[in-house]
Amino acid sequence: MNTQATALAHPNIAFIKYWGLADQDRSLPANGSISMNLGPLATITRVACDPRLQEDTLTLNGQPVTGQGLARVQRFMDRIRNLAHQNRYAHITSENNFPIGTGLASSASGFAALALAGTAALGMELSQRELTALARFGSGSACRSIPGGFVEWRVDPTSGETYAQTIAPADHWDLADCIVILSEAHKPVGSEAGMRRAATSPLQAARVQDADRRLEICRGAILRRDFDALAAVTELDSNLMHAVMMTSEPPLYYWLPDSLAVMHTVKSWQHEGLEVTFTLDAGPNVHVITTQALMGEVTGRLRQLPGVLDVLNALPAGPARLLQD
Amino acid sequence: MNTQATALAHPNIAFIKYWGLADQDRSLPANGSISMNLGPLATITRVACDPRLQEDTLTLNGQPVTGQGLARVQRFMDRIRNLAHQNRYAHITSENNFPIGTGLASSASGFAALALAGTAALGMELSQRELTALARFGSGSACRSIPGGFVEWRVDPTSGETYAQTIAPADHWDLADCIVILSEAHKPVGSEAGMRRAATSPLQAARVQDADRRLEICRGAILRRDFDALAAVTELDSNLMHAVMMTSEPPLYYWLPDSLAVMHTVKSWQHEGLEVTFTLDAGPNVHVITTQALMGEVTGRLRQLPGVLDVLNALPAGPARLLQD
Repeated sequence: MNTQATALAHPNIAFIKYWGLADQDRSLPANGSISMNLGPLATITRVACDPRLQEDTLTLNGQPVTGQGLARVQRFMDRIRNLAHQNRYAHITSENNFPIGTGLASSASGFAALALAGTAALGMELSQRELTALARFGSGSACRSIPGGFVEWRVDPTSGETYAQTIAPADHWDLADCIVILSEAHKPVGSEAGMRRAATSPLQAARVQDADRRLEICRGAILRRDFDALAAVTELDSNLMHAVMMTSEPPLYYWLPDSLAVMHTVKSWQHEGLEVTFTLDAGPNVHVITTQALMGEVTGRLRQLPGVLDVLNALPAGPARLLQD
Repeated sequence: MNTQATALAHPNIAFIKYWGLADQDRSLPANGSISMNLGPLATITRVACDPRLQEDTLTLNGQPVTGQGLARVQRFMDRIRNLAHQNRYAHITSENNFPIGTGLASSASGFAALALAGTAALGMELSQRELTALARFGSGSACRSIPGGFVEWRVDPTSGETYAQTIAPADHWDLADCIVILSEAHKPVGSEAGMRRAATSPLQAARVQDADRRLEICRGAILRRDFDALAAVTELDSNLMHAVMMTSEPPLYYWLPDSLAVMHTVKSWQHEGLEVTFTLDAGPNVHVITTQALMGEVTGRLRQLPGVLDVLNALPAGPARLLQD
């Protein structure tokens, strides 16, 4: 039986966003979501069981983690131990190959890698669907980093059934994500805390109610490789989420003035005829989605905009996977 | 019988916004709204009937107006002629004392002054309530510039009854509006055209459905002179309207990056303890609402922000009124 395992997972960018839970206890999202995995960005996580341990330890990017960060990982490992009927604790080491302080969430790739490495280290072999259902308890969007390529996280709020699955593989569509870094500051309010305010917005119910329509448009746009349709629904969905954030009680403002400047610039490039669109997660950085053919041109232009600290390039990437130790 | 009359009306700034019609033909707004009249800003309009005329003429700020601008005013005068059972045409001259190209809407003060001067010149004496119901056909928010001070535009969507009335006079509360001019460009999409898109947003119905709650909070905050309550509901309502705009089909982006910068700055001043809040109409300029005691301090600070072309000061003002010729 394995007692250690190492897994790699990519972060993902959502075209249709997850924001708000229908059921906190079961980690059921208020609506389904669709995303694209982002390589070469990755988290590599090693779980090594050690019979001498009384609790899990965590080292993230070479730094020991304590407090709430450790507790969150330990609760997730408890869940795996319950599934495995095991009582072994582990040394967990995790490395991101993308810079800390870029505002890029590592919780999706981190908990996807931990779900895979943790279950393997405890001797379990879950199906991909089971892994996605597990990973969401670490961080909702982590479930979308388990399957490869273009991924939909489905939810049936009545039955409570929820899982993520590939709707098209990574090589289906030559898209690129130019990630515009505008701030290296830590978010004043993290996604998990911010999301708990979603229901206080007068707009959240309407956003959720309209989600199936947007999911269908987005899924169809991906399957048909229809950039204009993807652009329209991606921008709409991003604006819907930020509308909920800015009308929550108290309001959450994640956009910086320079974020809005990038959005306006993307709109002006669309009028030039460029295949380019934008989406923002719970932070100020702007994901400018374009084609791989235009990636160099768009990156060069973005670097010249005011306030732009860096532009990272990412391409559609595969599923979470175990690595040889 | 009078055959000419001159009226003055002030523009107004809405704390609870009007955006979208429930019934286009009857000019019934989707929801009620609350505003404050703004002096010394004013439009002065003179209507002088002339039996030799075959149609109305219009001179705005010294310039003859033709085309759609003239046609809109002629349609409004036709409505007055119908009410008055009259067939006389008029020379209409209108002057704004606030700079053109500041993005300040003159349609509210303009049609309020025209409703009053036009009916007087045609020999009618309408009640204030009748005047508000008339003025809305020129421009919705014009009905709020007829009564004085703090004004609510009420609507009963079932009966179709709608009128505006004072909820507190101008001297009830020592508020001030510091109008931050960020752009002198003409709006790419005017309010009337933009508003017709409101129903295409997945958020408009929710915004409208929640309006009575916000109106009650706002009315109470004004009556109790509760700045913090006014600030919270004013910002929420502004964000709700811009959320609808940015999620319409096609989307409308009225905020400039510098608009968002002013909003963020106002939030930081609130954390310092300043009584200050913001609201934006269908344009990039930011109305920073504060107290008259703080007006000088706030204006000085605002002038130092990037992109600020000018800051205009305005105070609560009285009703539309006839002037001696």
